[in-house]
Amino acid sequence: MSKSPRIVSRKTIHIEWGDCDPAQIVHFPRYFAYFDACTTALFHKAGLSKREMLKTYRIVGIPLVNVQASFMAPARFSDTVIVESEITEWGRSSFRVRHRLFNKDILAVECIETRVWAVASGVHKDQIKSKVVPREVVEVFSPGARRGPVNKKARRKRQ
Amino acid sequence: MSKSPRIVSRKTIHIEWGDCDPAQIVHFPRYFAYFDACTTALFHKAGLSKREMLKTYRIVGIPLVNVQASFMAPARFSDTVIVESEITEWGRSSFRVRHRLFNKDILAVECIETRVWAVASGVHKDQIKSKVVPREVVEVFSPGARRGPVNKKARRKRQ
Amino acid sequence: MSKSPRIVSRKTIHIEWGDCDPAQIVHFPRYFAYFDACTTALFHKAGLSKREMLKTYRIVGIPLVNVQASFMAPARFSDTVIVESEITEWGRSSFRVRHRLFNKDILAVECIETRVWAVASGVHKDQIKSKVVPREVVEVFSPGARRGPVNKKARRKRQ
Amino acid sequence: MSKSPRIVSRKTIHIEWGDCDPAQIVHFPRYFAYFDACTTALFHKAGLSKREMLKTYRIVGIPLVNVQASFMAPARFSDTVIVESEITEWGRSSFRVRHRLFNKDILAVECIETRVWAVASGVHKDQIKSKVVPREVVEVFSPGARRGPVNKKARRKRQ
Repeated sequence: MSKSPRIVSRKTIHIEWGDCDPAQIVHFPRYFAYFDACTTALFHKAGLSKREMLKTYRIVGIPLVNVQASFMAPARFSDTVIVESEITEWGRSSFRVRHRLFNKDILAVECIETRVWAVASGVHKDQIKSKVVPREVVEVFSPGARRGPVNKKARRKRQ
Repeated sequence: MSKSPRIVSRKTIHIEWGDCDPAQIVHFPRYFAYFDACTTALFHKAGLSKREMLKTYRIVGIPLVNVQASFMAPARFSDTVIVESEITEWGRSSFRVRHRLFNKDILAVECIETRVWAVASGVHKDQIKSKVVPREVVEVFSPGARRGPVNKKARRKRQ
Repeated sequence: MSKSPRIVSRKTIHIEWGDCDPAQIVHFPRYFAYFDACTTALFHKAGLSKREMLKTYRIVGIPLVNVQASFMAPARFSDTVIVESEITEWGRSSFRVRHRLFNKDILAVECIETRVWAVASGVHKDQIKSKVVPREVVEVFSPGARRGPVNKKARRKRQ
Repeated sequence: MSKSPRIVSRKTIHIEWGDCDPAQIVHFPRYFAYFDACTTALFHKAGLSKREMLKTYRIVGIPLVNVQASFMAPARFSDTVIVESEITEWGRSSFRVRHRLFNKDILAVECIETRVWAVASGVHKDQIKSKVVPREVVEVFSPGARRGPVNKKARRKRQ
């Protein structure tokens, strides 16, 4: 995976009563719903609305193959948190998104999603398979990466 | 963290329409809701109903401090999956739960939760803090671990 | 809408920690997720698996046009509740499903869903429209309703 | 229930991928989660933050006793919708909240919640019971209603 300059999106989330459990804190699966929305917002900030992206590239989505999260501090209903999201690595058909959720300036949750660029499998209609992320998608996130042919070759090897 | 013999619980889950997203597959945050229920079921199998456990030990819950999951194969609505859950490690105030979700005998999702035994903080009513897991809780999961005083001392050191 | 004999399904639901809110009771939107699953189970009991039904009849689903629910008693985590579901009325392209959720033999929640048999609109791919419910679908729920041509005419008028 | 002048709150909601089901439309239980958040926002607009309200009045929440909703048009992921919320009626211990969700200026969903002002039951710690809504709570929503003793008596009768 290659490193590149970054677009960072910031999403403000109001913690709702229904996001919290009997321990009065956010029920952890809800954080992943927040982060999924933050990934959508990150692509949107880069000019790629999810709805358009699915149509343009005929993908079924950008599903996760791996996720890990650390919960450092709880968030509670009525809290307003900010999630900073960015793509930290690009692979051939996968990429990593890092989300950092801040509650009153304290890093409360950190999450790394590994997602794939996914299309419907040609053979089994019900199946999905990963596909190379289009160069222009990578480039909207990493404008500085648009260089000469040497670099293109070099990138091709790295993938 | 020390290794010990294991109680394994198996939970059958019917994937519901509302658990799936426009890509026709389970929306990944839902898996964590399944796994949270599987951890409850695992404790129940060990004789510790969550409701009773909260009362008996005056804990606010067993919240996560870390979670990681790998998604190897999708599950879809109408699928019936089986989740095998077990505690793989006990720490002083934390423990690890491993969930393996099988869809038609294929390992589709694997998840490792790290949870803590949590009580309300005495100082700040709103805060929670971790506490040593009671010996008898560990022991219901690891009957073979009930040994003599030497071992107790040994375990104390390991913690 | 015409009345008819009934298939009743009973679904046992274990109330999970994550279904409950800081008031320690089921967060009400979760009841609707339960009921949606109960409607699926009701059709399944009648021999119509949702996945097969979508394929066979080329419908996009059986979405709601109206729902109403009364909450008479709370349910809490660790409670095991039973939901009795049945179709109470058939219209031309719509039908009513009644769910009654019992908690320790007390009727805790009652819900009436009005759903439509929905297909993708031919004109606007993104739109959905209702369609006449196939006779055989109605008949699996109402075996006694399979009568002669007179009744067929009568039913047509009633619709 | 008495009618009164109104505070109306407007909440903008971005429909997320995870809010939608395999039919590509919002899974209907999610609408109720939106509306629950809209009720919280409505009270907030009236100067009553939910967190503070629970502390000040020692209530466990404002749970629903009844809800009804009509779904006139679907909403899809990437749609941005606006929900207008207001309290349409005040009873003695209950009140009605109306939510109207607009998608591109079309009224897509209308919902009426009937909620109660709820406290923990003194006898059974686990139970909740309704209680008279404090006059000042009603009055922040209906400033014009703060009149003389005659009207107070009149209101008492109406309740």
